[in-house]
Amino acid sequence: MATATSTTKAILPLHHHHHHPPTAATKNGLPISIRAYKDFILEFHQNQKPSNRAIKLAESLSNMLYQQIERNLNHRTSNVPRIEDKHDTPTMSPKEDISKKWQEIHGSNDWNNLLDPLHPWLRREIVKYGEFAQATYDAFDFDSFSEYCGSCRYNQQKLFEKLGLTKSGYEVTKYIYAMSQIDLPQWLERSRFVDTWSKDSNWIGFVAVSDDEETRRIGRRDIAVAWRGTVAPSEWYDNMQRKLEPIGQGEAKVEYGFLSIYSSKSESTRYNKSSASEQVMREVMKLVNYYNGRGEEVSLTITGHSLGGALGLLNAYEAAKNFPGLPISVISFAAPRVGNIAFRDELYQMGVKTLRVTIKQDVVPRMPGIVFNESLQKFDDFTGTLEWVYTHVGVELKLDIRSSPYLKKGMNLVGIHMLETYLHLVDGFLDSTTTFRSDAKRDVVLVNKECDMLVDELRIPHNWYQLENKGLERNFHGRWVKPTRDPEDIPSPIVESYNNVLEMQDS
Amino acid sequence: MATATSTTKAILPLHHHHHHPPTAATKNGLPISIRAYKDFILEFHQNQKPSNRAIKLAESLSNMLYQQIERNLNHRTSNVPRIEDKHDTPTMSPKEDISKKWQEIHGSNDWNNLLDPLHPWLRREIVKYGEFAQATYDAFDFDSFSEYCGSCRYNQQKLFEKLGLTKSGYEVTKYIYAMSQIDLPQWLERSRFVDTWSKDSNWIGFVAVSDDEETRRIGRRDIAVAWRGTVAPSEWYDNMQRKLEPIGQGEAKVEYGFLSIYSSKSESTRYNKSSASEQVMREVMKLVNYYNGRGEEVSLTITGHSLGGALGLLNAYEAAKNFPGLPISVISFAAPRVGNIAFRDELYQMGVKTLRVTIKQDVVPRMPGIVFNESLQKFDDFTGTLEWVYTHVGVELKLDIRSSPYLKKGMNLVGIHMLETYLHLVDGFLDSTTTFRSDAKRDVVLVNKECDMLVDELRIPHNWYQLENKGLERNFHGRWVKPTRDPEDIPSPIVESYNNVLEMQDS
Repeated sequence: MATATSTTKAILPLHHHHHHPPTAATKNGLPISIRAYKDFILEFHQNQKPSNRAIKLAESLSNMLYQQIERNLNHRTSNVPRIEDKHDTPTMSPKEDISKKWQEIHGSNDWNNLLDPLHPWLRREIVKYGEFAQATYDAFDFDSFSEYCGSCRYNQQKLFEKLGLTKSGYEVTKYIYAMSQIDLPQWLERSRFVDTWSKDSNWIGFVAVSDDEETRRIGRRDIAVAWRGTVAPSEWYDNMQRKLEPIGQGEAKVEYGFLSIYSSKSESTRYNKSSASEQVMREVMKLVNYYNGRGEEVSLTITGHSLGGALGLLNAYEAAKNFPGLPISVISFAAPRVGNIAFRDELYQMGVKTLRVTIKQDVVPRMPGIVFNESLQKFDDFTGTLEWVYTHVGVELKLDIRSSPYLKKGMNLVGIHMLETYLHLVDGFLDSTTTFRSDAKRDVVLVNKECDMLVDELRIPHNWYQLENKGLERNFHGRWVKPTRDPEDIPSPIVESYNNVLEMQDS
Repeated sequence: MATATSTTKAILPLHHHHHHPPTAATKNGLPISIRAYKDFILEFHQNQKPSNRAIKLAESLSNMLYQQIERNLNHRTSNVPRIEDKHDTPTMSPKEDISKKWQEIHGSNDWNNLLDPLHPWLRREIVKYGEFAQATYDAFDFDSFSEYCGSCRYNQQKLFEKLGLTKSGYEVTKYIYAMSQIDLPQWLERSRFVDTWSKDSNWIGFVAVSDDEETRRIGRRDIAVAWRGTVAPSEWYDNMQRKLEPIGQGEAKVEYGFLSIYSSKSESTRYNKSSASEQVMREVMKLVNYYNGRGEEVSLTITGHSLGGALGLLNAYEAAKNFPGLPISVISFAAPRVGNIAFRDELYQMGVKTLRVTIKQDVVPRMPGIVFNESLQKFDDFTGTLEWVYTHVGVELKLDIRSSPYLKKGMNLVGIHMLETYLHLVDGFLDSTTTFRSDAKRDVVLVNKECDMLVDELRIPHNWYQLENKGLERNFHGRWVKPTRDPEDIPSPIVESYNNVLEMQDS
């Protein structure tokens, strides 16, 4: 080296032990044995001259050891539980046979005595449905430079496999597409280009059905419908709280923006010649008839986050009208208010059970009608504004970001609203007076997929859910190209409905 | 379907040909044959009922065809050349034997008659060195959540392979690390955490040497040094134009911030017990002695972008002092001014040849000394501010973003300064009066790696250069974890210098 070589002496671990008895001695708060290793490694780096190839291995090992020691010291001073300790454990509780209790879990007794403390079977089912709703985000093509912007990146046969949901025990049977005939700025994800798969429609969710094994475990054949929401609720905040539209034959009314997305159709489109409503009703009817025909008990469970929760409630209302006697429950996350009192009352009369999962700090469940909410009901007859009173439906499971040691406590409005934040808090919820349960199994890292909610000590990058090079790939010549989508992953209304017919015939 | 079936008749391509002679007929500006296909496909979608599985294939094909037609229409109306046409072509011109002309290409005649028009051999060499400089960005770990933030993500044996530079004909022999003893805010990329690979140093570049085949082609053994710059020049704009420090024994002075990065060292660090200056001089000396000892002619070519160009000039100055007679050239991109007139004059006297590549719209080459620049030289004796007069060195190749049909023309200060934008414009440069050459081979997509400079018609995502899920990987249990870095990719000062010794002995 050009600089002077070190003039300090090599100090071996033994020296330190000599000066400091190893029992309780510390230096700078470190146990001496670790301190000695650190000195040894530093000295090793300063004094050794390379003499043979074995030193390479020693060097690498000492590097890693050095960092492990620093890391341990670092973590010792933190209140945040180490997530590394759970790296080699499953991310879900084992499956248990809930067949004897499934009606209660789906609200037959209005979730009495199941929410506080939260029954572990119910917790597991809430997370299961929540992950279906999350799948509608994870697989959605948000890239406005993509000609498939607004579609699902995978076809329905591949969806669960690509997202690691094959163990869910469900199979996707139908994709649902939606459009809106009224102008809802920012709702539709649209490609920047002319030659897009669809100018009008977005993939808005899917229908799935439990397989035989899951059906045995949960005590009935379950049809699950998952509705996609929007990522940034502020986008529709201004546009969706202005007007109520009638639904059904009575006094029930619902927010016109939600209803437009749920029921719009146009013959000039490829994917919404029938509305989302018609698509999902047709699929549910087909499945109900098929499994009833085999003598099976069937249930319908509808889930969705944010706007998706609102669409889910419209879906439940319509399904209850069309399938009297079918057990229908809704598990919604961060859903805004949807309709008026009459809408709620009709849902109750028809036996629809709704579990609303909310986070105390999330503003979206207070929309629309932050002003005109239930607490004003007593003024209704007086003011004549009954139709303007949006109201919530069902039973609430209320979460609190302060309960989790993993979450930042600032008012990150987007992060607090994210479905992954909800699922994290459900997974850790014991009861309303206790903090996060220590044996929660769900992967904490998921929270930061599309936000920055995890405390920095965990060292998880924020907004980490992203494609390598935004989907560009280097070809044989070294050029970066957009791979063409596999033909089976290009959205195709005919193929999707046709596949269904074939599969029903095959079964 | 629940909706009414279409009542329009199927129209076959033949009908259209019947009504419109195929020769010059168009409809909405489309050749009729394409229009007919479109109608056919639309009708196909509306009228066909699924009857067997073959329809799936037809449907997929028609989908793709439909989109191809739309794409063609879209492109036909644009002035931007199609980049898809070059997908299956090489990204560089073929290598030619430049051994007879290499001194001229490296400035022996001050690039007289080589720049306007730009000699194709020189163009190819500029891009070659520029891609070395680009490699210092592409492999740099910018992730502040990484414990290796500020290091190179790959070890020196793997660098070129990982970046697709194996065909360059060079091999990396040494990594260079730098620190700064004066506070240069925002210069150092630093991990957020205590247990980082280094608290003080950043990877700042590398030394490479031409292999035997490339050496034959270029007429001498070439030692290349590539210096990394900073990504956002605004970060050091405010901090690096205040003070000149003497360099050498005469009147030469250079900007103190650049000099600090180039020459700082500290015994308490792991990677800068010797300075960047000492590291690179030692390596160059070793290589020069080795190849001179084998009777080979040797050259030194230094490259860098932005701050890296400034460091390269300091490097050239020092090398010229230490190796009189060694042909030294600098090819810099977007480099700011570095020193005073005396510094420039010493460089000239020692025979250092500098080719400065600039973009007319880029502000960085006007820094420091936007005010105190060459044009004020006549006032120097009067005002006594000679030492404050920063001056540029060498010969300029001046580019213009308006020359490329692929680039947006707005004043995107970051995008205009990016090295990939420079390399794109060099690749397309014919002469100062002509626009972009149509046979330019370099991949246009690269421009948008870390900015948004390509026109939207090209549909290339902006800032697309990114890791899948920011480096997180799903493990066996479905948990997202940070993979530990391979031991050989953990920066290690001993291993790196030791490997070199071994390799020199092996050769």
